[in-house]
Amino acid sequence: VDVRLAMTGFGNVGQGVAQLLAEHRDEYKARYGVRLLLTGAADRGGAAVDPAGLDERTLLRAKQERGSVSASGQEQTGVVGEEFLVNSRANVFIEAASTNFVDAEPGWSLIRSALSLDMDIVMASKGALVLYYSELMELARSRGKTVAYSATIGAPLPILELTNRALVGTTILGFEGVLNGTSNVILQAMIEGNSYDDGVRAAQELGIAETDPTLDVDGWDAAAKAAIVANAAFGSALGIEDVVRQGIRGITPEDIQAATREGSTLKLVSTASRRDGVVVAEVRVERRGPTDPLGRLRGPEMGVVMHADPLGDFTATVENSGGVTGGIATAFTVLRDVLNLARSQGWNSSRPA
Amino acid sequence: VDVRLAMTGFGNVGQGVAQLLAEHRDEYKARYGVRLLLTGAADRGGAAVDPAGLDERTLLRAKQERGSVSASGQEQTGVVGEEFLVNSRANVFIEAASTNFVDAEPGWSLIRSALSLDMDIVMASKGALVLYYSELMELARSRGKTVAYSATIGAPLPILELTNRALVGTTILGFEGVLNGTSNVILQAMIEGNSYDDGVRAAQELGIAETDPTLDVDGWDAAAKAAIVANAAFGSALGIEDVVRQGIRGITPEDIQAATREGSTLKLVSTASRRDGVVVAEVRVERRGPTDPLGRLRGPEMGVVMHADPLGDFTATVENSGGVTGGIATAFTVLRDVLNLARSQGWNSSRPA
Repeated sequence: VDVRLAMTGFGNVGQGVAQLLAEHRDEYKARYGVRLLLTGAADRGGAAVDPAGLDERTLLRAKQERGSVSASGQEQTGVVGEEFLVNSRANVFIEAASTNFVDAEPGWSLIRSALSLDMDIVMASKGALVLYYSELMELARSRGKTVAYSATIGAPLPILELTNRALVGTTILGFEGVLNGTSNVILQAMIEGNSYDDGVRAAQELGIAETDPTLDVDGWDAAAKAAIVANAAFGSALGIEDVVRQGIRGITPEDIQAATREGSTLKLVSTASRRDGVVVAEVRVERRGPTDPLGRLRGPEMGVVMHADPLGDFTATVENSGGVTGGIATAFTVLRDVLNLARSQGWNSSRPA
Repeated sequence: VDVRLAMTGFGNVGQGVAQLLAEHRDEYKARYGVRLLLTGAADRGGAAVDPAGLDERTLLRAKQERGSVSASGQEQTGVVGEEFLVNSRANVFIEAASTNFVDAEPGWSLIRSALSLDMDIVMASKGALVLYYSELMELARSRGKTVAYSATIGAPLPILELTNRALVGTTILGFEGVLNGTSNVILQAMIEGNSYDDGVRAAQELGIAETDPTLDVDGWDAAAKAAIVANAAFGSALGIEDVVRQGIRGITPEDIQAATREGSTLKLVSTASRRDGVVVAEVRVERRGPTDPLGRLRGPEMGVVMHADPLGDFTATVENSGGVTGGIATAFTVLRDVLNLARSQGWNSSRPA
């Protein structure tokens, strides 16, 4: 069975998705029973559309050599809007453009169009989730469609697998997570004696830093993740502005050394808890010891601890990725959402082509 | 919407399920949209059946005071067999009797009957999973029914949430897990200077030790879990006899002290990996350091590390449960499987009563 995907955004994540599709299409078909076709791809320069499936390697070459997928010579549209989605005939819309915390556009308009066109949504961008959470979820519910967003919160951590499945029947009291890869890499670089600026460059070389590093180092990205995880864990509707926020820009080598002297490391921690029915979310820099589940993490490694009543603390971490982090790890998580969606919808067995 | 449950086994796990239903029925209804009714309960002494729902507190009292649910004065059947399932009119059959690694009876016969009666299956007993894995899964597939078994492998760890969801799209290379609570508690007691026998008693007081402690201390339980997790991770069909097995019975205070001197602890580790298409599973006692994700675990705490290509090592642990372990933790996991099943089947929204 074919599953058609339309995707906006062709940066690290979008290119990762295209690369994984090109390399693993047959494997996914054999393992999961669905053939994933990229039928629409768009970036700031325009779009390429072919409802029979674009050639991803051609798209990747066009992006690298000419700056946009719209230069790929494949069937095109110049305008990226509802027409792009209609022409792609996609079953799933993947929103992977650069995150925008001001108005979440153009993603938010495209998501609404996609839902009205009966598409399910897989998000790698956080904007609409932290600016229009209630409206987005209500719209999806009213259309009977799924919004999957594992890729927005510390991909590839199994956070929503915890909140939505493993912790069903318990009460989540709170969580704490090391979810911003860029801050991790910068702090790790400083621990190793390098400067803050060296750390920023290292994160950019790993393909981890967001397009605008301000979003990472001032805690905006970690705050968005705190809000998204809180909403999944508590059924709240926090926006990014509801999160008390601290970044790592002001951290000095002296701060780092003081932590090192007591055997600890500094971590940018996204946290939230519910007390008396009120959800409080915060991002702050904390010292964590070497046996702490989050303090153990090095470099770009990420993790989360969920406090569940009465079963205790559920920890999930990802380590030793051998450099497979950032855009590629997020791209894997996008495709995991697509493949799980395909299974939950029964597309792998019963859906007409 | 009502979901009717028939359950065999009324030991620590079964009583935990009954207690949770009695205490949380209204909360589950409000949160998850389904009213869970226990319409059949059976133990070695007989059964109680009422398709309108048994009173769990009466069952618990009968068990404690008179040794069997069949003495509860509720509508009864004397024989526990297919008739018990038919009369319960259950949607879901919960198999929570003592695990039997010889022939998996009477659970295996009841599971086959339940599938033929169009019931989904939630297992807390491991027997049928490690003696008849292929046959069980093929039978469920042919009937279009679900077999859920999170409660059999280190409950409440999110192991199947990793293998079946979070790691979709990656290739699992291997895993290592601390999955046997009894061995954990015994080794911890010995680390604290107590004898092996003290440790066994501590595990029994926590309600963690299996009915026959041989299954724990000789590694049978850990071996069964290695096989079950391997089958989920690799699509293999290992049985318990395929697992190379070591237990903790031979561990001496000297072994413990030697590990302590190097800052490590001994753990009974269930492990498996796939090499050249062949799955090899093993249970062995290993030294683990204090910053190791499994070495950090204390007392009854459990954890698993999955090695996924190319994303790295996914760790999941449960800690600081405040004594909520063993039977109650397993009972929570049974109900999580039931509630997730209800959602995946759409029972919470669309199913006629």
